[in-house]
Amino acid sequence: MKSIPIIQLGLGGVGRELAQQLLARRDAIAERYGVSLDYLGLVDSAGVLNTGAILSPEAVLAAVEAKAQGRSLLEQGGAARTDSAASLRGPTPVIAVDVSAASGNAGLLADAVRFGNRVVLANKQPLAAAYSQFLTLTEHGATRYEATVGAGLPVISTLQALLDSGDSLTRVEAAMSGTLGYLCAELEAGRSLSAALRDAHALGYTEPDPRDDLSGKDVARKALILARTCGLAWELDAIPAEPWFPPALAAVSRDEFMGRLEELDAPFAERVAEARATGSALRYVARVGPEGASVGLQLLPAAHPLAGLRGPDNLFSFTTARYAERPLVVRGPGAGLAVTAAGVLADIVATARELV
Amino acid sequence: MKSIPIIQLGLGGVGRELAQQLLARRDAIAERYGVSLDYLGLVDSAGVLNTGAILSPEAVLAAVEAKAQGRSLLEQGGAARTDSAASLRGPTPVIAVDVSAASGNAGLLADAVRFGNRVVLANKQPLAAAYSQFLTLTEHGATRYEATVGAGLPVISTLQALLDSGDSLTRVEAAMSGTLGYLCAELEAGRSLSAALRDAHALGYTEPDPRDDLSGKDVARKALILARTCGLAWELDAIPAEPWFPPALAAVSRDEFMGRLEELDAPFAERVAEARATGSALRYVARVGPEGASVGLQLLPAAHPLAGLRGPDNLFSFTTARYAERPLVVRGPGAGLAVTAAGVLADIVATARELV
Repeated sequence: MKSIPIIQLGLGGVGRELAQQLLARRDAIAERYGVSLDYLGLVDSAGVLNTGAILSPEAVLAAVEAKAQGRSLLEQGGAARTDSAASLRGPTPVIAVDVSAASGNAGLLADAVRFGNRVVLANKQPLAAAYSQFLTLTEHGATRYEATVGAGLPVISTLQALLDSGDSLTRVEAAMSGTLGYLCAELEAGRSLSAALRDAHALGYTEPDPRDDLSGKDVARKALILARTCGLAWELDAIPAEPWFPPALAAVSRDEFMGRLEELDAPFAERVAEARATGSALRYVARVGPEGASVGLQLLPAAHPLAGLRGPDNLFSFTTARYAERPLVVRGPGAGLAVTAAGVLADIVATARELV
Repeated sequence: MKSIPIIQLGLGGVGRELAQQLLARRDAIAERYGVSLDYLGLVDSAGVLNTGAILSPEAVLAAVEAKAQGRSLLEQGGAARTDSAASLRGPTPVIAVDVSAASGNAGLLADAVRFGNRVVLANKQPLAAAYSQFLTLTEHGATRYEATVGAGLPVISTLQALLDSGDSLTRVEAAMSGTLGYLCAELEAGRSLSAALRDAHALGYTEPDPRDDLSGKDVARKALILARTCGLAWELDAIPAEPWFPPALAAVSRDEFMGRLEELDAPFAERVAEARATGSALRYVARVGPEGASVGLQLLPAAHPLAGLRGPDNLFSFTTARYAERPLVVRGPGAGLAVTAAGVLADIVATARELV
């Protein structure tokens, strides 16, 4: 039985769910694949838990439980952090798992790869920053990152399998935001954008400041990760995202923005009317292909794969040299703690099987 | 650079396409993953090509070319066959790839696994025979078999990732036959079954004897592979498939069957009329869940994921503990030489990465 040490960065919602899923599945994974997934360290904005030896499942679960209650069992200070970095230089390959939303882990992750370790990411930041960093992390397949796009849906693995087998991408068309998909469905059902958005905000479907969803930036980051996976050496500014609000509302306070939502209603009502008149579907679509990318609201003919989508599901339609006439389509819930953590855990298992 | 020896069983359409794809991608795979995919042997009903050393790409392509022209460069006789079997007992793990449709390879494949090698299958036979054989082949993940269900679509890998991460299957609902999907679409478009089937037969969309499609047996075999992947210890007779023809037409000659197709029209016209009257879609559906499986024609409400399917595409809808309210859906062309071979090649790459 081979022990595979894991250092997990992040103990937020996804991180706590991952630790629980992993420990619950540990014995079954050991029996099936002959690998023992062992926590060597937990790293969080609050501190570090790393004794230099394998942590007991009880210690990990205690840290998870404490964090869920707003406390932290992680140690502050330099000694434990240095231990984590040192673990990445040891003779045994480690899997460094970043399930945080932090932008400060890139150096540690690049070090991990440089010293022959593996990386698994739910965090989009390290892959959506400079292209050179994406290359460093993903060279020779050292990093898996299924959960960065579509959560637990098989998106990156599907694209990678197509590319590995020599297929070439013509285009991906995707709906990658549950929040924006929900708003499209409400608009099509005849509601005003302001009313739909106020409800979504109250129900917690949006970010605390809904402009973080409505800007389209998060969708653009996912589109960038898809493009880079195909070998396109782009930076984020190559993918302009159409925001749902005019520049005048970009700089105001959140409260003012929420108070002026009705200003958005007329232009959106126009687009909905146009969609109805032409029998089209209104969707917030990301398109990525060798010739370029776009992220924005589109009117799609009823027969388009994305037109059949209702509500918050994600959908990815891959048109390739081999799937030329009819695309390969993956669809389903693309957000949520349980499915995101499951996507990360599946990546960890796939990586661990390579380290036996 | 680690050499990964490959023994390929089968040089039919998929086998020839696979050899060409693999050799075209060999350098790129070597560069990306540090593994060199090297043919050690080719085995076919015509004979064996195995010199005991790695075959040159030229020798493999010559054998492929000859076979495509109806000749064979494979040697008859015992010596080369023994070499192939001996390769599986050597110190270097081999990937045995079965892209034939033969039922006689089970012993060799079981030997391969027993001696620590790996197996990749497009051939359904070895997994749809006795359950004990399925267990032998798949224990500890020794065998990958993506292409046995849905060709290149990510079906088995998706299901396995769900299970690995601790999700549990409630049910899979699937349309897994392009031929039967085509017939459903034609029926819904108002054609008679006999006319649609005669066209499909003339166009080569069906097996030479269309009853091989219409019996539903092939769909049942795929459903069995899905069930067994979930740990359900079933045999094929646990999945009754509803045939499209009455018992009286099962035993007659192919020519007589083709001459009596009009006998099928009236009962199918009734079902189409019922579908229309209730606003339903007519689909040939496989359902698999812990409580049992069924394979047959069904009327589905318009909102069902399978109702949106048109024509020959395959569709797989996974409802699980985590994808409970809305399923995870994979859809696209589920047959064809190029996508089937690509599914096999992606499995070979994934396996090779574990052997570095």
